[in-house]
Amino acid sequence: MTVRSESELAFLSIEQAAALLRRREISPVELVDAALARMERNANLHAFLTILTNEARQNAKRAERVIRRGEARSPLHGIPVSLKDNFWTRGIRTTAGSKILADFVPTQDSLVAKSLAEAGAILLGKTNMHEFAYGITGENPHYGSSRNPWAPERVSGGSSGGSAVAVATGMGLASVGTDTGGSIRIPAALCGIVGLKPTFGLVSVEGVVPLGVSFDHVGPLARSVTDAGIVLEAIAGKDPRGKTRPSHRALHPSRPRRFRLGWPKDFFFERIHSEIRSAIEAAAKTFETLGARIEEIGLPNLSTAVDHATNVVVVEANYYHESQGYYPSHAEDYGDDVRGHLEWGHTVRAVDYLGGLEARRKITEDFTRAFDKVDVILAPSSPISAPPIGQGQVRIAGERETTVRAELLRLTRPANITGLPAISIPCGFTSEGLPIGLQLTGPQWGEAGLLSIARAYEEATDWHDAHPALG
Amino acid sequence: MTVRSESELAFLSIEQAAALLRRREISPVELVDAALARMERNANLHAFLTILTNEARQNAKRAERVIRRGEARSPLHGIPVSLKDNFWTRGIRTTAGSKILADFVPTQDSLVAKSLAEAGAILLGKTNMHEFAYGITGENPHYGSSRNPWAPERVSGGSSGGSAVAVATGMGLASVGTDTGGSIRIPAALCGIVGLKPTFGLVSVEGVVPLGVSFDHVGPLARSVTDAGIVLEAIAGKDPRGKTRPSHRALHPSRPRRFRLGWPKDFFFERIHSEIRSAIEAAAKTFETLGARIEEIGLPNLSTAVDHATNVVVVEANYYHESQGYYPSHAEDYGDDVRGHLEWGHTVRAVDYLGGLEARRKITEDFTRAFDKVDVILAPSSPISAPPIGQGQVRIAGERETTVRAELLRLTRPANITGLPAISIPCGFTSEGLPIGLQLTGPQWGEAGLLSIARAYEEATDWHDAHPALG
Repeated sequence: MTVRSESELAFLSIEQAAALLRRREISPVELVDAALARMERNANLHAFLTILTNEARQNAKRAERVIRRGEARSPLHGIPVSLKDNFWTRGIRTTAGSKILADFVPTQDSLVAKSLAEAGAILLGKTNMHEFAYGITGENPHYGSSRNPWAPERVSGGSSGGSAVAVATGMGLASVGTDTGGSIRIPAALCGIVGLKPTFGLVSVEGVVPLGVSFDHVGPLARSVTDAGIVLEAIAGKDPRGKTRPSHRALHPSRPRRFRLGWPKDFFFERIHSEIRSAIEAAAKTFETLGARIEEIGLPNLSTAVDHATNVVVVEANYYHESQGYYPSHAEDYGDDVRGHLEWGHTVRAVDYLGGLEARRKITEDFTRAFDKVDVILAPSSPISAPPIGQGQVRIAGERETTVRAELLRLTRPANITGLPAISIPCGFTSEGLPIGLQLTGPQWGEAGLLSIARAYEEATDWHDAHPALG
Repeated sequence: MTVRSESELAFLSIEQAAALLRRREISPVELVDAALARMERNANLHAFLTILTNEARQNAKRAERVIRRGEARSPLHGIPVSLKDNFWTRGIRTTAGSKILADFVPTQDSLVAKSLAEAGAILLGKTNMHEFAYGITGENPHYGSSRNPWAPERVSGGSSGGSAVAVATGMGLASVGTDTGGSIRIPAALCGIVGLKPTFGLVSVEGVVPLGVSFDHVGPLARSVTDAGIVLEAIAGKDPRGKTRPSHRALHPSRPRRFRLGWPKDFFFERIHSEIRSAIEAAAKTFETLGARIEEIGLPNLSTAVDHATNVVVVEANYYHESQGYYPSHAEDYGDDVRGHLEWGHTVRAVDYLGGLEARRKITEDFTRAFDKVDVILAPSSPISAPPIGQGQVRIAGERETTVRAELLRLTRPANITGLPAISIPCGFTSEGLPIGLQLTGPQWGEAGLLSIARAYEEATDWHDAHPALG
């Protein structure tokens, strides 16, 4: 049996690890120990809110026995993973990054926690997040902000910040997060990993603390497209209430030969950092060498409609917090930024909410028309790379100052408004050495095609092989 | 050829008239002339906003020729009918009872106007209505209030008040109206005729000036259940956009033998005029002699949820008026009552709108459970009979004073919230000689069963044979 270094074990792909486990060349216990060691040494990154050291080791030993009997239940059996802290976990504190739920211990598992356990995955812990998932930086006034492993004075992105940090630093091989406005794709982009938001309804939100019920999506964060597909396969289409579609053949999509990529004339390239634009243009060139035809597409309603559609999610958030009796009764228990959002949502007029629904329909029509012409739409995941923690304002390409929040959300929001599947994959680094994310958006239920195109790019490049230098 | 009096012609049922037309015993011209004569003589009732004297006579002559050739296209061929003034009619002014649309002449027909024309029905005119259908009394500050033919100093009910008055007084054999909170059933009840609000989506609202888009229903007002079924057959399931279900076999339902009627323990009998309660109890006894079993049913959420669900329709109304630019820009052009509703809807919070949607779900669940047990639910159409024009407040059974509007809407609203089919049929008179309506509600798409049960009652009683004494 080859002796493998902690770092080697920690950065295995799920595919590799599963093969090694099957061949008894490694044990789940080694995988878990490597991840736990990194979690402990890099606690300053605030990736986890709860670490399940003992449970994870016990489950690893149990998995070891099962796998050695040749009874592995899935490619995830014995694989250490983490879960964002807004997924209910039975007997394990589930804070949603909030003070209000600081002592909440669910008596039931979320459906995703159950699915991962059934697949044999080993839960390392619950990851840090933006309070109630209601923010995009991963800064958290109650538990400390998760930090970008490429530059720890910068944000990880959020709200699934802890999940992205954990995966980027070898604290587990994958994680599952949620994405209501970009909360999987943004931290994935800012931390240099893969983040997939599937089609609305593909993965059950049962047992997830909601943010905006018609915008909430569950999806994987991983270090490769294939790994993201393996995790998706384990959690998709499992809702016993029948509200989700059956799982797709997302895991082994065939290699695409000729495909059409849409380059948006509108909205997505209106105001972005020049180095990010260059990286996406270079990605487009790479795609052309892979057989893609790039076509300009129009999305004429986006620029005016996205802000209106935002009324809808803001109001859904307030409905949850107000009907639970959290807000305004416990307004003082929220961080300043989340309280600010709730103050806004409290006063939105119902007529403007209906205007938001109308804007949403227009945006969806834009994308529906575009997907008549192309297989996948190309865009940046974010117009900026990770900003410093605490920075509120940003100026892009010499234009007027805007908020970091607005900019980080801007390019990921459309896929939440439409429910279309979208993935962020690494496509380069800025001159400051910060990761850049390429966002690919596919048609409804088009996960298989989306992943096959993303994987073709990944195989042709090596951005995803870089890991942050850490202790 | 027998000579028939104007009154005899005016009060024929559609079934009778169609048979006489086929046998050439009467002509469509006679039917139209009888109706027009009554419209002219009883103009004080304000049933019509536009009278199409010449067009109707010309169309009657044309229909006469077609029918004499044996080419009648439907039981409505050659039958004079009216249409509420919120249905678009090509080249014919369509005011929706408002000052804002006083000069609006559509360039297209509503789908219902088209369907009626295709069936061969002859349009007598456009009927008076509550401004923008946003009221339940039929009082109208711009065009004069429609008046109850049983007591002209009293309201007709609304918003399809002119349609109900027209049908009750022999100004045409039927009419088509709209019902967003009771606007077909209430004037039908108060004027002593039949009014049917079908299942949401059965009849297209294309080309109807909207009130609340998820509450708006189109349906017939007629003098018998069979006639209502004939009109429904002509207008149902015709939406080329495919949003409506295909037409049902609503016309010739088989006579029910054994059936279960639900008597609501909750909500519907909580506060009603004692004579109305007695009339509904007597109707239940009649049903028992027809083979019905009466069962108590619970609708536990209604009393608390109906008011919350009202937020939804109010906001939908504002969304239309605000997005059209009518309100608040032209606030002074509305009557006081409608302006008051719009002022309210303008300020409803979006979170309360979502609360309204939740209330709506609960109410729908109540009815779904009830229809596991019974075929049809029995209730009054209105807790009061027609109040005097101008009266704003009312006191029922010695309880606290409430508004006429709230009371007239109270018992019909649930069927708009749920989209379930409901019919009002005559079931008696108060000691003051004012008609009383019995409301029967059926399960979704249950028009055939609902009409067969309503017709069984109608055949066993003679309330529908009474007509108001007029000039």
